[in-house]
Amino acid sequence: MANAPVQRMSQLLAKTLRDDPADAEVLSHKLLVRAGYVRRTAAGIWSWLPLGKKVLANVERIVREEMDAVGAQEVLLPAILPREPYEATGRWEEYGPELFRLQDRRGGDYLLGPTHEEIFTLLVKDQASSYKDLPVILYQIQNKYRDEARPRAGILRGREFLMKDSYSFDTEDEGLAKSYALHREAYQKIFARLGLDYRICAATAGAMGGSKSEEFLAPAEAGEDTFADCPNCDFAANTEAITYELTSVDASDVPAAEDIPTPDTPTIETLAASLGVPASATLKNLLVKVDGEIVAVGVPGDREVDMDKVEAHFAPATVELVTETDFAARPDLVRGYVGPRGLEKVTYIADPRVAPGTAWITGANKAGTHTKNVVAGRDFEVDAYVDVVVVQEGDPCPTCGTGLVLDRAIEIGHIFQLGRKYADALKLDVLGQNGKPVRVTMGSYGIGVSRAVAALAEQSADDKGLCWPAEVAPADVHVVAAGKALQTELALDISGKLAAAGVRVLVDDRPGVSPGVKFTDSELIGVPKILVAGRRAADGVVELKDRRTGEREELTVEEAVARLTA
Amino acid sequence: MANAPVQRMSQLLAKTLRDDPADAEVLSHKLLVRAGYVRRTAAGIWSWLPLGKKVLANVERIVREEMDAVGAQEVLLPAILPREPYEATGRWEEYGPELFRLQDRRGGDYLLGPTHEEIFTLLVKDQASSYKDLPVILYQIQNKYRDEARPRAGILRGREFLMKDSYSFDTEDEGLAKSYALHREAYQKIFARLGLDYRICAATAGAMGGSKSEEFLAPAEAGEDTFADCPNCDFAANTEAITYELTSVDASDVPAAEDIPTPDTPTIETLAASLGVPASATLKNLLVKVDGEIVAVGVPGDREVDMDKVEAHFAPATVELVTETDFAARPDLVRGYVGPRGLEKVTYIADPRVAPGTAWITGANKAGTHTKNVVAGRDFEVDAYVDVVVVQEGDPCPTCGTGLVLDRAIEIGHIFQLGRKYADALKLDVLGQNGKPVRVTMGSYGIGVSRAVAALAEQSADDKGLCWPAEVAPADVHVVAAGKALQTELALDISGKLAAAGVRVLVDDRPGVSPGVKFTDSELIGVPKILVAGRRAADGVVELKDRRTGEREELTVEEAVARLTA
Repeated sequence: MANAPVQRMSQLLAKTLRDDPADAEVLSHKLLVRAGYVRRTAAGIWSWLPLGKKVLANVERIVREEMDAVGAQEVLLPAILPREPYEATGRWEEYGPELFRLQDRRGGDYLLGPTHEEIFTLLVKDQASSYKDLPVILYQIQNKYRDEARPRAGILRGREFLMKDSYSFDTEDEGLAKSYALHREAYQKIFARLGLDYRICAATAGAMGGSKSEEFLAPAEAGEDTFADCPNCDFAANTEAITYELTSVDASDVPAAEDIPTPDTPTIETLAASLGVPASATLKNLLVKVDGEIVAVGVPGDREVDMDKVEAHFAPATVELVTETDFAARPDLVRGYVGPRGLEKVTYIADPRVAPGTAWITGANKAGTHTKNVVAGRDFEVDAYVDVVVVQEGDPCPTCGTGLVLDRAIEIGHIFQLGRKYADALKLDVLGQNGKPVRVTMGSYGIGVSRAVAALAEQSADDKGLCWPAEVAPADVHVVAAGKALQTELALDISGKLAAAGVRVLVDDRPGVSPGVKFTDSELIGVPKILVAGRRAADGVVELKDRRTGEREELTVEEAVARLTA
Repeated sequence: MANAPVQRMSQLLAKTLRDDPADAEVLSHKLLVRAGYVRRTAAGIWSWLPLGKKVLANVERIVREEMDAVGAQEVLLPAILPREPYEATGRWEEYGPELFRLQDRRGGDYLLGPTHEEIFTLLVKDQASSYKDLPVILYQIQNKYRDEARPRAGILRGREFLMKDSYSFDTEDEGLAKSYALHREAYQKIFARLGLDYRICAATAGAMGGSKSEEFLAPAEAGEDTFADCPNCDFAANTEAITYELTSVDASDVPAAEDIPTPDTPTIETLAASLGVPASATLKNLLVKVDGEIVAVGVPGDREVDMDKVEAHFAPATVELVTETDFAARPDLVRGYVGPRGLEKVTYIADPRVAPGTAWITGANKAGTHTKNVVAGRDFEVDAYVDVVVVQEGDPCPTCGTGLVLDRAIEIGHIFQLGRKYADALKLDVLGQNGKPVRVTMGSYGIGVSRAVAALAEQSADDKGLCWPAEVAPADVHVVAAGKALQTELALDISGKLAAAGVRVLVDDRPGVSPGVKFTDSELIGVPKILVAGRRAADGVVELKDRRTGEREELTVEEAVARLTA
């Protein structure tokens, strides 16, 4: 076995900190900074210090091995990309302010790639001419750029981040399904080797376009995604992707609509309290502007509107909330008393929970007045049904009806069946078996490599610090010289023996640092095995500690080396 | 030994081309494109295809191993960097249009790092507080960005390119000298392992600043640098760095200066021809504007002025040639007849070859008139002596006086003793042994990783194609199935056996491609060993060919496998 390196902490660039950085909100951010793995260079822009770079490289290696194992070919495309292909697919505009745009010295427009569908499509267009050249799966591990509005959570959501992105090219839909399945399996292996706890969830495709897509979500407090888990069946989905099915209700028993005086009840809470009904009996009507046109969104009074869903429905149009000025310009819209009945010159969309036949108490479009027994489809028309509510804990599982459980999670992977969106925009055809051109169908697949490091930190940390799974840890063993020259000499001697057997060693040989500080740092840094040369060093006895369980054992040096090189 | 991959050409994304790309001027550009290693994505912006990525990764690995071996610690800093530190050192402006600048959504200024001195300085300022934390050497392998005026020569001079950059931090000058020496040794090992022919040459520091600097130059036709080599001693230097020593000459015998009529001789050629003297007897005076002020540059009439040297001397001031308009504004400057004698309100700099006491024929500052016996230091004063001439073949070696030989070369590495320039600008101090702050001294060291691939291609190619040294080749063996199903089966079988023994295999199993095309492609692709399963496949006999020497040998399959796995 090859000689592994010994990293001496006396020479290591990694200053540990006792206190959490002031700007850190999430656990991984706090710990990765405190343990000397990363440092912030600018908002959402990070530097990886030696220990962090080792972990990152380990994640990269695992990703690379499993991508190679499914026959994917590694390439490296530029990070700075010309505008034209993104113009052709519409993404130059669609990406909005999230895209870093720049000009070169001649005024040519470029962008920093947020994802590379366009460039891979053009590469395959250049390289493949026949169905015989496909299928092909290409991947790269490379910096990506997104100018986030609010970069936060440390490396969980940076503006420059390391990503593995891959792209599959097939002539047939079945081929795409196979390439997709290969990725799904590779991702399962990767995340298992990384030691990540994750769920595969149905997802919306977002700005990427295309049809089928699944997310790999790692449950964690710090996660920005919410996923719903069914405790009864195997359903799991990003809450963004859950849609309530439209049904209809018999409304023949419902009396005619009737106005009721409800002074000073401009909110659902005041209305429900004043009438002594649950909020769920009322219909809430949120006004938004879609590219400047007013649209009303109807949802049950006890539900929140998910603006991301509204935006996704109207994309690429922009959606804004109405303002005082908008109300001033439209005296027919009575703030706090808007209702769908008699509402004119306003598009009305409703959540499927406002199904045809359901009856509601809602605004009468007159100040201080509501209407009861307002029936959808009888007293007002819905222009479009769109699921726009925020999914809540206990909502029925779309598969089996059981109440869903909600959890926060980090998106660590995403796989998409793009279909022909990019191939259409950039005219990617190959010659088919019948001699005629066939339009290529594509998949796109991503793993957040730097984000996976943060997700691992989140999931594996305990109250003492980081606690890495073996395969990604920056070292296999952290040897601590707890004492004076004798202990340091022993620690370095053991480190040399371990390294000679291929064990990656981090050794704390810092002079003038107390054993207590070294123990605390070793737990903060989180190498799986900690070997202490301490009080019984003179007898050739050391202590081996398991970072996760805290189990300790006294061993002779020979036993310890044998154990760790086994 | 671990299983190595088998890359099947039937599945490989790498279309070989029969013809050179139209825009390619240099050998490495032509061959790397033709053999399917790289593709151009935009001007000076390249994509690495699977074979190219493998070579690039091999170079990266060698660089990493040798940097680790001298105790350098790998980190990864951002490519997108905030303006402020570059503002503090003046490089935000000094870099001029070569710097890619961009703004984020909030209007904050950023740049794409051309080199990272500032950010590493700040990192060490954050991490190191005491002399005990130093010395430290940090490195990264990362994309760099320079908006070249004329991106050319394929990946030799791209606008996005992969670089290993490292930085050393020491408190003492002797420490810096040691860090510099460590890099010098590591670079020698790296370039030797890469199989590159190179010379270490004295160099100018350029925009980096600092004192001592050496370049690693790989001789190649396509090189943009010219270096001078002494055939007698071990002197070698970039011609930019060669300076002629100033001496002085006894001028007591030279008669007084005397005007001579020289009508219609506005050029050195016409003057020398008309007087029947060599051009070297005349003094040429070039006028330039330095930040708008006129400066005359005097050099022997047979020498060319190296504008890079003039610019380097006056940097950061800008240097331009004078125009018609400038002559019109200064009637005392007579075009074609400018001379240093009686020249007023003009700074006069001269090459050391115009040493005190040397006598010249030069312009009299009157139309159609020159002056002879014009002696430097007697008849005119030189404001500053600066070596500004283009070095010529046969110029005396500064060490031993032998005539120098000039060659073109590619700069593959550069090492600098920066000193305290960046530490001063960014106030990088650590607590010294005496308890007082010590300003840190730095070195900066670079290897063009992507450029090294091009340099290797340039140096190792022959008229058949690429011809990689073993350690960087995309595979160890290229197995060619030259025939039908029988040959393909045998080729794949051998490939499997080789891979099982840890040999990296590229196998040409493309159906319907003639043996001739496969042979041509194998020579173009340039894997060191080529194993052909051809006519004698049925007898279990294959042909092993050395790509470089062309030597062939018939062997049984067992012999071949044994030979290649030895």
